[in-house]
Amino acid sequence: VKVIVEQNAKSMRNFWKIGADDPAKIVHCLKVGLALSLVSIFYYMRPLYDGVGGNAMWAIMTVVVVFESNVGATFSKCVNRVVATILAGSLGIGVHWVAIQSGKAEIFVTACSVFLFAFAATYSRFVPSFKARFDYGAMIFILTFSLVSVGGYRVDKVVDMAQQRASTIAIGTSICIIITVFLCPIWAGSQLHRLVQLNFVKLADSLDGCLAVYFSENEDEETNMKLQGFKCVLNSKGTEEAMANLARWEPAHGSFNFRHPWQQYVKIGAAMRRCAYCLENLSICMNIETEAPDQVKKHFGEACMKLSLAASKILRELADMIKNTRKSSKMDYLVFDMNSAVQELQETLKTVPIETNKPEEDVKSEEDNKGDSIMLMGLHEVLPVATLVLLLIENAARIQTT
Amino acid sequence: VKVIVEQNAKSMRNFWKIGADDPAKIVHCLKVGLALSLVSIFYYMRPLYDGVGGNAMWAIMTVVVVFESNVGATFSKCVNRVVATILAGSLGIGVHWVAIQSGKAEIFVTACSVFLFAFAATYSRFVPSFKARFDYGAMIFILTFSLVSVGGYRVDKVVDMAQQRASTIAIGTSICIIITVFLCPIWAGSQLHRLVQLNFVKLADSLDGCLAVYFSENEDEETNMKLQGFKCVLNSKGTEEAMANLARWEPAHGSFNFRHPWQQYVKIGAAMRRCAYCLENLSICMNIETEAPDQVKKHFGEACMKLSLAASKILRELADMIKNTRKSSKMDYLVFDMNSAVQELQETLKTVPIETNKPEEDVKSEEDNKGDSIMLMGLHEVLPVATLVLLLIENAARIQTT
Repeated sequence: VKVIVEQNAKSMRNFWKIGADDPAKIVHCLKVGLALSLVSIFYYMRPLYDGVGGNAMWAIMTVVVVFESNVGATFSKCVNRVVATILAGSLGIGVHWVAIQSGKAEIFVTACSVFLFAFAATYSRFVPSFKARFDYGAMIFILTFSLVSVGGYRVDKVVDMAQQRASTIAIGTSICIIITVFLCPIWAGSQLHRLVQLNFVKLADSLDGCLAVYFSENEDEETNMKLQGFKCVLNSKGTEEAMANLARWEPAHGSFNFRHPWQQYVKIGAAMRRCAYCLENLSICMNIETEAPDQVKKHFGEACMKLSLAASKILRELADMIKNTRKSSKMDYLVFDMNSAVQELQETLKTVPIETNKPEEDVKSEEDNKGDSIMLMGLHEVLPVATLVLLLIENAARIQTT
Repeated sequence: VKVIVEQNAKSMRNFWKIGADDPAKIVHCLKVGLALSLVSIFYYMRPLYDGVGGNAMWAIMTVVVVFESNVGATFSKCVNRVVATILAGSLGIGVHWVAIQSGKAEIFVTACSVFLFAFAATYSRFVPSFKARFDYGAMIFILTFSLVSVGGYRVDKVVDMAQQRASTIAIGTSICIIITVFLCPIWAGSQLHRLVQLNFVKLADSLDGCLAVYFSENEDEETNMKLQGFKCVLNSKGTEEAMANLARWEPAHGSFNFRHPWQQYVKIGAAMRRCAYCLENLSICMNIETEAPDQVKKHFGEACMKLSLAASKILRELADMIKNTRKSSKMDYLVFDMNSAVQELQETLKTVPIETNKPEEDVKSEEDNKGDSIMLMGLHEVLPVATLVLLLIENAARIQTT
């Protein structure tokens, strides 16, 4: 019994921690509750209920299905739902009219049209560019079209029904939009912005941590935690793309305009991932290889630390640049700094083979080479950073101007 | 006008290509059309329509929302929908009964309970382990609970209504399940299996292509295409995890049992991505650096080609192993082969610094080092492959036994 209680206590703590870590989630939950309570007023008040002809159900359904945790997602779903409903509703009424005109073939006409439109809409959901933006709309299109055209077989006043449903859906969506935008809004754009900025800091931390562990051997918990930071960067592709997609739907807010170049964030993310790949390989080298002799380490230590310091400074500066959405004046200087550090490391590299390849050290030379390789990887790792820097300077300029 | 026509023709060709490349998608579209036509029979036949008390709408809605392109996804949505509806329906009826007992406070009791349950269910959607499996169920729970408890305020026979809706949903889900399972089923498990297998082949192709381009300089279209293969592997994390999640819902089919170790595929995928990171870095090195002198290339060429051949042979053997789901007897031999190739490359490395670091070649030594580094990366790259091999041999054994 005690074990079960403890397990429960542990999972409850985890449960609690999710909310404590990110209060925005709690706010979202409260907003869902509020929106549902608001929309149920349509049931409680007789004039309102009769006004929509007993179709209040659709308002509730809309709120439940459409309400998402950030503004962009809610917007995109609302627009999709409304447009798809109107489109499919009018098409459905048209098909219903044709079916009635055709007399005895009514069932045949409706069934065929449902089959055809369902086929076409489902097929369009496989087109990647369409899917990214209108996947939900296509589903609602099939749903509404089938309900209107097939349902028209039993219900007499199809047009009235379609109109009432459209108005209840409009009511539902407007409640959702008002609540998401005006009550503690959570913007997909801001989340994306913060994510990219945090990822830069994580990369810098990992780079620092990696080199520090290798050259000074002080492995404590905190450094190890930081070292793993780049793994988050590796896995953030999906999130970034989804966010950038949603952010496009959002109106201007805070320091972001309506046509903020969200796609640039995806590109920055891709460049960051290339850095993260290098870090991954660097850490593989560190863990698997046998230790290089102290002599080699010392030889390279200084130049490497300098280089990694320069690189991580650039990363941090980029994080700041993203935070303030303006170009930093220090950037050119930092890039110059890094390049000179690269030069210095290359000089160090040139001197090493002569030093370590005396015949009596033949047995050691293999390990030396491994020491070499780690340094050279340090070098390679800097190259994407440099590319990233160039890209970002361009981006920053663009962000500034737009 | 001509430009517009041409653009349309081009997008139509793309549109057509999506279906032509993967006939399973067309089959899915046809199945959706068929399922909808089938379920609309409930509208066309008077006894059936009256039997469900005019709630036939819910059957159509269920089919549209629940029907997914693979069996696992359809199963998981069906189970989620049915369980959540029953749970929320009975809870809703309970709350409705309490609300009626409380007399004047009826509205207050219902509104509060809707607020609370909506809050709790939305919060649970943020718990990662819950979200992965029951996200859809939580939404349906909120929906059904609000409809039953709030709707009960206007409708007299709440129990009848709830029962009829449950039965229509049951009809909808059973039609979906029958059609997905018995008409050209598309299994998430098989898709995952094929994906993992193809990724192995892609990795092997990229590795071959990479080395071939670097050492023999014959860059044609086909090699370049193959070279990019590892990028797919980099981006397949999300797909693999989603598929593994869905595959768990599927019953035994083909050579897969009910408790097939799908999570192993995710692990294999992670190991493959580590290989792909190495390939990414290898290709960065190849593209950015200035060319190493021919002499150095020649020196390393043979050993490197041997190593990469051995590694890609292993990858292909692994692909075959996955395909046949049994352990290969050749594996031990191939691993031994690769290890001896690694040894050979290390021997070659030992000889190089002495050879190239004569004083008169000082200017070149930098480039030599870069040549070095590429080789060493070749070496590092093999290490994860070796890790992967060990992991996979274990996996294969496990797949065999289960």
